[in-house]
Formats: sequence, structure tokens, C-alpha cells
Amino acid sequence: MTEDGRLLRGERTRTAVLDRTLRLASADGLDGLSLARLAQTLGLSKSGLFAHWRSKEELQLAVIDHAREQWLTDVIRPALQAPRGVRRLWAAHDRRLAFYEAEKLPGGCFFANSYFEYNARPGPVRQLLGDQLTGWTAFLTRLAREAVDAGDLRPGTDPADLAHLTDSLGVYAAMQAPVRGAADTCAQSRRALLAHLRAIATDPTILPELS
Amino acid sequence: MTEDGRLLRGERTRTAVLDRTLRLASADGLDGLSLARLAQTLGLSKSGLFAHWRSKEELQLAVIDHAREQWLTDVIRPALQAPRGVRRLWAAHDRRLAFYEAEKLPGGCFFANSYFEYNARPGPVRQLLGDQLTGWTAFLTRLAREAVDAGDLRPGTDPADLAHLTDSLGVYAAMQAPVRGAADTCAQSRRALLAHLRAIATDPTILPELS
Repeated sequence: MTEDGRLLRGERTRTAVLDRTLRLASADGLDGLSLARLAQTLGLSKSGLFAHWRSKEELQLAVIDHAREQWLTDVIRPALQAPRGVRRLWAAHDRRLAFYEAEKLPGGCFFANSYFEYNARPGPVRQLLGDQLTGWTAFLTRLAREAVDAGDLRPGTDPADLAHLTDSLGVYAAMQAPVRGAADTCAQSRRALLAHLRAIATDPTILPELS
Repeated sequence: MTEDGRLLRGERTRTAVLDRTLRLASADGLDGLSLARLAQTLGLSKSGLFAHWRSKEELQLAVIDHAREQWLTDVIRPALQAPRGVRRLWAAHDRRLAFYEAEKLPGGCFFANSYFEYNARPGPVRQLLGDQLTGWTAFLTRLAREAVDAGDLRPGTDPADLAHLTDSLGVYAAMQAPVRGAADTCAQSRRALLAHLRAIATDPTILPELS
């Protein structure tokens, strides 16, 4: 095997391990990760894992980055396919709920779970999670601003307030789904944002009808 | 010491231990509790703790009940002092945010943290947490219904939808506060609900002005 081949295999192992670790962390918590237990669960040698991450914290930071990649692929990029304006903001909410409904992760929303888990734990993990939340709310705020600038929403609509409401409804769905069921929870979350967007839209007919 | 005296002292110890355990659980998670570590942290004998709770799960269930008592005292009862109607629903949101701002618990919101922690962990703890969430949303829905019945809100306002929006904004504040700061976070959460309530109130002037 050439050196390139080994590198490629290393990258593949890395991605496969991060996929499974992300699933575990979404259910058991990010702090519950341990390289020793992970090696056992995944049937890998501990030294093999250590070749990729030298500490639990390195692995945690890598899992957060991996979750961000998943969110980009499954939520953000599909949302960006919608036309710029209020429909794109709507698509971000809709795709996020579809992510929860499809049970992409056993724990529902890795990010929401981790934010709450690390509410009172300062350090590099908390910092990277905080950066992620700040980046995500900035993204939603940008979509809301574009919707105002496009004339889709009433002048005077505050983009930050609209992003705040949108993300509140999304996070709440992640929390409520295991108790109430994902279908009912996500249906109500869609209705709630759509009712608000219709009320402030200059032309409500460009927004979808929910079946 | 009489038997009544020992019983009283036992109850006092129990309450004091639950107070401190709730603080720990709000920061480190409910699953992170261990009777052994707790005994060490609180400087108590393990047998003393075992006299009150025979297992980690018994202690976890007792902590959830204790958190419910705290929420009753600090949020629900003060909110019920407000006049029935839209002002009482507003007071429930306002008192909850005041609870976060006062940093009553180092982890912010014990309930929100625990709901997310137990998203993927079925069992008696998850069940009791689910009952708590169901009870709380039923309480908010009742306040919203009373506000409609009192004529404070436009006829046709859906009480469950309004409760859903109210709780979404509250949970989001608990999540965002450690990243953005409690003051800014709670100010935005108050503005968001108040703007919505004003828009659907028959007489917006009965709602408070935010300073």
C-alpha cells in the first residue's frame, strides 16, 4: 500500500469513527465520551484512536466540527437551494425539522443537547460550541435580513428578532419531540413559524401551504 | 432527642442535601450524580445518604421533585399573583426569565438541561421528566385559554399555539444566556413575547412597558 493509500484509509477510518462517535455523543452526551470506552464500543484498538486524537478533548472538538459538517450538508446547503428571501429563511426551518423527523441522530439535535450540557462548563469545548451557536444565529439573521431587503417582509421587521424567534421554535422542537412525538412536534413548529411569516410577509402567497 | 426531633432533623438534612444536589445536577447533569461522589462532595457518610435514597435512580427522581418545588415557589406561585388573563401569562414568562437572571442554579435551567440530557434515555427518569414537561405546557395553555376567555386576546387565538410560542422563547433564553449573557438574552426574550402579546391583545395597554 502506498503512503497515499494509507493516508486515504486513515481519513476514511477517521470519518467513520466520527460518524459513530457523533451518534453516541448525541445520545449519551459529549462529556460521556471516553477514548477507552469508544475503542471498545467501536471494536478498534485504543492506540488506533490515539493516532487520530490524543485526548478526549481533541476528540470532542473533532466531533463538534463533524456535526457542523453534517448540519451544513443536511440543513444549510439544501436551504440555500430555495430562492433568496423569506422562502430561504422558511427552508432553513423546514430542513432543520426534517433533520429531526428523519432521526438522523439518535439523540435528536447534537447541538442543542451539547449547548445545554455545557451551560456551566467553561473551556475549549464550551467555546467552540458557543462559536457554533453564534455562527448559526448570524446565518439565520442574514437570511432574515435578505428577506427584508428583498421586500418579502414588511419594512421595519427586525432581522435579529426574526432569527431569534425562528431558532427558538427549532430548539423547542428538538426538546419536545421525544415526549410528544416528532410528527406532532414538527407540525406545530412549522405552523407556528409559517403563521408568523405570513403575518409579516408583503405577499403571503409565496410561502408554502402546509398539507 | 425525641423521635419527632430525629425525624425533623432527617427532613432538614434531606432538604439541604437535595438543594445542593439540584445545584450540582443543574451544572454536571442528572446522570452524572453518584451517591458515592455526592457523599464526598457534601461531606456526608454514604450510609447517611443511603438512609434517604437507596439508589442513584431514587435520588434522581427526588431531585426532579425538588426542582419542581423550586419552580413552583419561584416561578408559578409569583405568576399566579398577577390578575388572571394575558397579564398572568406574561408574568409566567417574566418570572421564569427572572429565575434565570438571578442565577438560582449554576446550570441555568435544570429542567431544560435534563430534557435534552434524557432525549434518548428511556426509563423512569425520562418518564418523570416527560410528565413534568407535559404538566408545565398544560399550565401555560390554561393561562393562555384564560386570557382568551377573559377577552384579553383576540377571539380565535389558539391557546396551545400561544403556550408553545411562550415556552419556546423561555427555553431558548436558557440555552442562549451562557453564550450571550443573561441580561441581553432575557431582554430579547421579553421583547419577543411582549411584541406578540401586544399584537393579539384586545387592549395592549394592560401589558407592561419594558424599561
